[in-house]
Parts: sequence; C-alpha cells; structure tokens
Amino acid sequence: MYKFAFTSGDINGIGPEIVIKSLNKLYKNSRNKFIFICPRNVFESAIKKNKPSFNFKIIKETNRLSDDDIFILNIGNFSQEIGKPTEHSGRASFLAVQTAYELAKNKTVDGIITAPISKTALKMSGVNFPGHTEMLAQWCGQKNFVMMFLSKKMNAALLTIHEPVALAAKHISKELILKKMMVIEDALIKDLKIRSPKIAVLGLNPHAGEAGLIGNEELEAIKPAIEEFKGDSIISGPYSPDAFFGSGMYKNFDLIIGMYHDQALIPFKMLNFNTGVNYTAGLPVVRTSPDHGTAYDIAGKNTADPSSIIQAFYYAEKIVRNRKRYAGKKK
Amino acid sequence: MYKFAFTSGDINGIGPEIVIKSLNKLYKNSRNKFIFICPRNVFESAIKKNKPSFNFKIIKETNRLSDDDIFILNIGNFSQEIGKPTEHSGRASFLAVQTAYELAKNKTVDGIITAPISKTALKMSGVNFPGHTEMLAQWCGQKNFVMMFLSKKMNAALLTIHEPVALAAKHISKELILKKMMVIEDALIKDLKIRSPKIAVLGLNPHAGEAGLIGNEELEAIKPAIEEFKGDSIISGPYSPDAFFGSGMYKNFDLIIGMYHDQALIPFKMLNFNTGVNYTAGLPVVRTSPDHGTAYDIAGKNTADPSSIIQAFYYAEKIVRNRKRYAGKKK
Repeated sequence: MYKFAFTSGDINGIGPEIVIKSLNKLYKNSRNKFIFICPRNVFESAIKKNKPSFNFKIIKETNRLSDDDIFILNIGNFSQEIGKPTEHSGRASFLAVQTAYELAKNKTVDGIITAPISKTALKMSGVNFPGHTEMLAQWCGQKNFVMMFLSKKMNAALLTIHEPVALAAKHISKELILKKMMVIEDALIKDLKIRSPKIAVLGLNPHAGEAGLIGNEELEAIKPAIEEFKGDSIISGPYSPDAFFGSGMYKNFDLIIGMYHDQALIPFKMLNFNTGVNYTAGLPVVRTSPDHGTAYDIAGKNTADPSSIIQAFYYAEKIVRNRKRYAGKKK
Repeated sequence: MYKFAFTSGDINGIGPEIVIKSLNKLYKNSRNKFIFICPRNVFESAIKKNKPSFNFKIIKETNRLSDDDIFILNIGNFSQEIGKPTEHSGRASFLAVQTAYELAKNKTVDGIITAPISKTALKMSGVNFPGHTEMLAQWCGQKNFVMMFLSKKMNAALLTIHEPVALAAKHISKELILKKMMVIEDALIKDLKIRSPKIAVLGLNPHAGEAGLIGNEELEAIKPAIEEFKGDSIISGPYSPDAFFGSGMYKNFDLIIGMYHDQALIPFKMLNFNTGVNYTAGLPVVRTSPDHGTAYDIAGKNTADPSSIIQAFYYAEKIVRNRKRYAGKKK
C-alpha cells in the first residue's frame, strides 16, 4: 500500500472535477491511500455535481490519517470564477502544489499526481514558474531533470520545454544532450524497469539537417552526444523527424528524445489523445500529471474526461513500486 | 485528354522504378498522354526488373508525338551507382527537371510529376537548390510560392521550407504570412475547387505562445496577419500545435498552415504514409511529387511502393482540370 496526493490544479478549470471522477474510480480498485489537496469551498462545490462514492474526511493537517477514508486536505477558501484564469485560481493552484511537494518531501506520501494549472493564472498571482516541472525541480534543488511523456504507444523526453522555438534551437548542445541522456536512462531503468533501453534521438532541423545542408546542430551537437554517451542504453539517431514518425519507426524504441516541445508532443498527442501522462524524471519526488491543460472552455460542465489523470496515477504507482524494488535490490 | 511529364528523379534512388510502376498502372486507366524524362541507359536498366506493360518509344525531341505510345524522352546517358548520391545522379536529376520545366513552359505538357531528388547529389554536381519547389519557383520568376502537402485526410501549407529551425523562427512575420495566405487561398479556390476555404493557422511556439508568455511571434505576426487578411477564406488561429492535432481538430479544416517544415510534416506523414502529395502552389506550371525521398536504402530492389507518386499524378490531373475550368469560366 502506497500513499498518493492529488492536487486540485487550477480551481477554475477541470482539475477538481477530474480528480473526484478519478477517486470515484480508483477508490474501489486500488489498495492505496489518497489525499486530495484542494480548497474546501472548491471541493464542496465540485461534489454537488459529482457525488463522491468514497468516504471522505476534510482535514487541515496530515498527522493522523486513518486507513479507511480519502482525505481532503483543505488549503483554505479561494473564490472561484469557473472558466477563466484569475489571481485567486493561480494562488490556490500554486499552494496545492507546494503542499503536495511538502507531503512528498517528508514522506507522508509516496507520489503526487498534479491536475492542470494555468501559467497565466500563476502569473496573475505573482508566480513566474512556467509549469509544474520547473517548480518541483527548483524545490528539489535539481537542475538536471527531464520532462517525459509516457504511454503504451510511445514514450518521449523533451530536451527543451516551455521555450520559444527560436530560443530552443539555440540551447541544443552536446553537453545538454549528454546531461539529459543520463537522467533519461536512469528513469527508464529505475522508474520504468526497462533493462537496456532502446532510445532514438530526433534531429532538430528538417531532414535531420541533411548532412549539414540544413543547419549544423545535428553534426555539432546531436551526433557527437550520441557517440560519446557511455551507458547501458542503445542510443541511435539523429533521425529525420517527419520520416521517423511517418514510417512508424518510432514503434521500435522504448523512448524518443525530441529537441523541442511540439516535435515530440504533436506525435505523442496524436497517438494518445487523453491517455498520455506527463512525468518529471530526475527528481527524488515522484510526480505525474495528465498531458492536457486546464480546459477552461468545458470547466463546470461535468463533461471532462478523467482518463489521462487516471493513467497518470497508474504510472505514479508503477514508478513508486519500481523505485522501491530497485532500492531494495541495491541494499 | 491532358499531357503529363514524369521525371526520373535521382537515378540512383527509387525514382525510375516508381515511375515505371506508375505508368504500368496509369496507362490502362487514364486517357492522358505521358512522357517520361529519363536517361536512356537508366530506363533500359530499370525495365529489366520492371517489365513495362505499355508501348513506348524512346525519343530525343518532342516535336512529333503520336497518340498511342508513352514516350521516353532521353536526356543522355549517365552512369549509375545504385543506392547513393553521386555527381552524375545529381546532374541527371537536375537535367530531367529542367527539361520538364521547358516542356511545361512551352505547353507541350499540362503538368509535371517529379520523382525524388537528393540535395546532396545536386550539391555534388554543383547545383545549390534545396529542392524542386525552389528551382521551379526561380525558373518561373515567382518569389511568392508555397509548398503544400495534399491528401484526403489533411492538406497543409508550409510558411518556411528547408530552413534550420532557428532561422525559420526568425522569418515569421506578418508580411510573410499575408503574402503566403494569398497564394494559399488562390490555390484552394482555383486548383482544388474549394469555394470558401476553411484555413487553420498554427502557432509557432509551444501552446501557441500562451498569450506572449512563450514567445512573441503569435501576438506580433500571426494574430495580426489573421485579422488583417482580406479574402474569401475563413481563417482562424493561431492554434496550439500539439492540442490541435491531438484533439483531431485538424479534421475541421480544408488546409492547415504550419510555421515550419516538421510542424506540418510530422502529422501529415503520420496520417498519410506513402500516400501524401507535395504540390508547389503559386506557379504557372502545375507540378506535384511524392512526399518521400530517394530511398537509396531500397533502390534497385524492386520493392518500392509507387502509391505516393501515383497520388501525385491524380492531384496533378485534378489541378490541371480545375485550372482550365476556372480559366474557362472567367472568359
């Protein structure tokens, strides 16, 4: 039995709704313990539309958790304006993640699953993080982390994350790739239990640079990194991105390293609509999340699909279990 | 009845093989007339493996074309080294395209279908064009042209083509988008006969820039271009690229404008492996081609699939027919 915390995400989006839908489902089939970190008023409003089928207790602190309930960890009251980012929604979503991080750090929970937040709302509340990944990495004091996307059809890792395309291209270097490859290999072996991972690296430029005719990053950074990497993985590339996905070659690899956000996420989301999972590799804290956003446009309508956040929980559980086993073996 | 020229493409790749396979198929079902522009030795070598089911005449000039044969327009002899780019293959492929262009210009043919060429081979032979599109555009004296990709599942247009990602991002401007939109609208209406086209414009950056938080191109170039465009199309965007394809939203549009090569071509090729067609919009000459490359790795093995170049022919035929009808109406 492991313990997991879900966060509310942005309280004006679909976060609270999909967490309650998930808990309704997971409560029956899982032997794990759940804490839902959410403002009290938001939870009470959400359960009017989504009757919880689980027993719950609203608590303010986590020092005495009994075994048979799901705990709603109240982080205060925050005014809601369903369907749009506000200063309040930004503050609440940030506080929920901070609280989840604290619970993970002091081992009250084994892993956290975060519902979607809005960068715009965060900014309104004076918080300048671009997303969960960057927040948690900073709190963990970890500079070398990797945003990964997990699914049965394709696993992907991003070399650059929430950066303008022009800037992302500038950041590609041999050193960056080598550093990230170490984190990726570690996550594949320890977290996903893949013994000698097959990893594909995409080119940055059209036709993977066509031998230097369309950009130099492949020859100057990507190829040398692949050649110099010493590890237990079978790493190959750089592949011409469009042909790699068009031909179905991606199916032969345990993970694909994309140079920038949309290069990996366009194919990932085409293959996994609403079932993909976002994972931050390289952190001591296990954290997953759905691969979609706050979906303000359908918030409050009770039509949101919880599939992706449910998958996020399953991956978190798997990673927690694999990490404990791996640590046990090492002793 | 229309007349079409096929080019050999790179003679060390799969070009000659897929053209002969196509002619074997098209000869029976089509009322059109075909000319295959190819070095004589290459054609004679190719038909040893692929017996032609059509009657053919090898000619040196096109001034007297009878009605019942397929003509092989001999552009000389070029030594072949199957499976790799060479100076000879570069020269032959370039000459074939030049010849095709001349035939189209003097109205000997109504449209041309070009087999894949290699930029590396072209360079070896001293030719610095990155591809067919740029060559034909220069010969036509047309600076404002658009590389389009056509299929039943998705049509796409590229704002930038064979450029390094870092450079492509720099080229995005309101003026460029507006100029290209005019060509795109014209092609959709006149060439593809779509009355009021629904066009989607993708963002450049992750999450389409998230209101300026991840790059400024959306606010400074893309949005203003969409707002200022005056035409008969329904243009919307900028859309967040990964969500746009992941959610299936792309199905609602007649054409999608991508900011750079792989943004449009990763999804296009995932949806259309070996059936997509490359089209250069905005030129007086009608020219299509398959959406794959020279495939040196399978050249000479007689295993190449001609589906994409056959589709390229069907699109060329459709565009020629639509253009003639449109011109007829205007009179």
